[in-house]
Amino acid sequence: MTEYLSLIETKLQEFLPSTDCTEKVLIESMAYSLKAGGKRVRPCLALEFCKACGAEPQKALPFACGVEMIHTYSLIHDDLPDMDNDDMRRGRPSNHIVYGAATAIIAGDALQSLAFETVLSEEAEKLCGSAACVKAARTLAGYCGALGMCGGQMIDIMYEEKKAGIEILREMDEKKTAALIKAACEMGCIAAGADDHKLHCARVYGDNIGLAFQIVDDILDVLSTEKELGKPVGSDKENDKSTYVSLLGIERCKEIAEQATEKAVEALEGFDGNTDALKEFAYSLLNRTN
Amino acid sequence: MTEYLSLIETKLQEFLPSTDCTEKVLIESMAYSLKAGGKRVRPCLALEFCKACGAEPQKALPFACGVEMIHTYSLIHDDLPDMDNDDMRRGRPSNHIVYGAATAIIAGDALQSLAFETVLSEEAEKLCGSAACVKAARTLAGYCGALGMCGGQMIDIMYEEKKAGIEILREMDEKKTAALIKAACEMGCIAAGADDHKLHCARVYGDNIGLAFQIVDDILDVLSTEKELGKPVGSDKENDKSTYVSLLGIERCKEIAEQATEKAVEALEGFDGNTDALKEFAYSLLNRTN
Repeated sequence: MTEYLSLIETKLQEFLPSTDCTEKVLIESMAYSLKAGGKRVRPCLALEFCKACGAEPQKALPFACGVEMIHTYSLIHDDLPDMDNDDMRRGRPSNHIVYGAATAIIAGDALQSLAFETVLSEEAEKLCGSAACVKAARTLAGYCGALGMCGGQMIDIMYEEKKAGIEILREMDEKKTAALIKAACEMGCIAAGADDHKLHCARVYGDNIGLAFQIVDDILDVLSTEKELGKPVGSDKENDKSTYVSLLGIERCKEIAEQATEKAVEALEGFDGNTDALKEFAYSLLNRTN
Repeated sequence: MTEYLSLIETKLQEFLPSTDCTEKVLIESMAYSLKAGGKRVRPCLALEFCKACGAEPQKALPFACGVEMIHTYSLIHDDLPDMDNDDMRRGRPSNHIVYGAATAIIAGDALQSLAFETVLSEEAEKLCGSAACVKAARTLAGYCGALGMCGGQMIDIMYEEKKAGIEILREMDEKKTAALIKAACEMGCIAAGADDHKLHCARVYGDNIGLAFQIVDDILDVLSTEKELGKPVGSDKENDKSTYVSLLGIERCKEIAEQATEKAVEALEGFDGNTDALKEFAYSLLNRTN
């Protein structure tokens, strides 16, 4: 799914405002995090789903960039001292460590605005039409808002001091992680002018790879900790946050992750176009080892 | 311009998500600030400009609510400990004092998403059409982003330690305050399907009342300080931030505010509909005493 990476990088850069302005440092701060890379999973998904619907993947480029800007703003704000207080992100100092918390707050805010400006840009309107732009931006706003990504972040904070049950854990991950993945998948379909059935299938795919991803993450965490400690992780971790593994055990977790991956792959049958990369991506998430 | 206040209050409430969810406290935090009132200047301007273009003012209601949500999120983030660190807002404890900084950050983020969800809602699309929704949301995103409101906030921070000249002061206010006022005025016109000339006139009006408002604010500040101290405010305030009065003197400031108000009122000649309320509002900003 890396075929479009350089296209995405170039386009993200293009949509950033020029630094030729008084608030230069703000643009630099936005660029610092936006260009920090990562795997660009969400924009790649948007392009692949556009292709799966039988359209030119590039049609979804502005939508793809918009999703990545939302993802980037959420990382900047999550790292803030008042939030998770993380000094490092992707092997580099966090935005607020380099630019200060005030600038990091504003950079996150401005990246959210830029995301919508991008999804609703003249370029996007020319590529996909007004109605698709409205639908895509509304989808994005819903998935990243109070009942989506922001809601997931809030639930995470609410359960910092108390143990979450499996329903809460599932809801938190669905909102915190899967919501924006679903946004990317659906927006790719919207760019292609897809019907409701295809949108539904994209949503099922996004939801299930989101779940599988999170569970595999938990499993890998436990395995690497066991390796370090040389013994199984058990009751001595009772005060930690709930995870899928702590609630369901490692074997049941592997089963669920496999089932979710199969569901995601089955959902791809709803598409006529080439879905090879999407299928491969689902299995690669399941079988990754780090 | 208070004719539509209850309509706006009702609609703002309607667009808020229900608190019937796990992240209830997030919705409460958003509602706390959104319902905290203020004069609803921006949404009123949107409705009045829609009327000035000869359309039903209510057509602009979702756009008007979107602008107010952006304004509200900006106040929540501005008050944060890492920003202006203000404990009080409109006579009540700030959002982060009641809900904590983490929730306040997320509430601001979610209000920005909600603003775009509202401007791009099915209701807005039904009232104004897809093309107008795209144009309105793009306009809003531009004015509230890195080269608009967020940029103004950044410039404010950049000049905390050093004195701003008149050009910087003007640019800061234009971005920090006038940008969102212009967004409201233009979005009202967009709801009415107005042409580019009307949009231009709305922009001139918004820019000039924004300037007049800020200058009158500075004048009133100085007068109330003089009243308190019983002597003219002069060179002993050298270490404070630049203001229009400190840079230009009080008489020149009064002149500029009057000229700006006249320019705003003249711009209303570009409209066929009733602009009485807009004219009255411009003069009321100039002649206010607190």
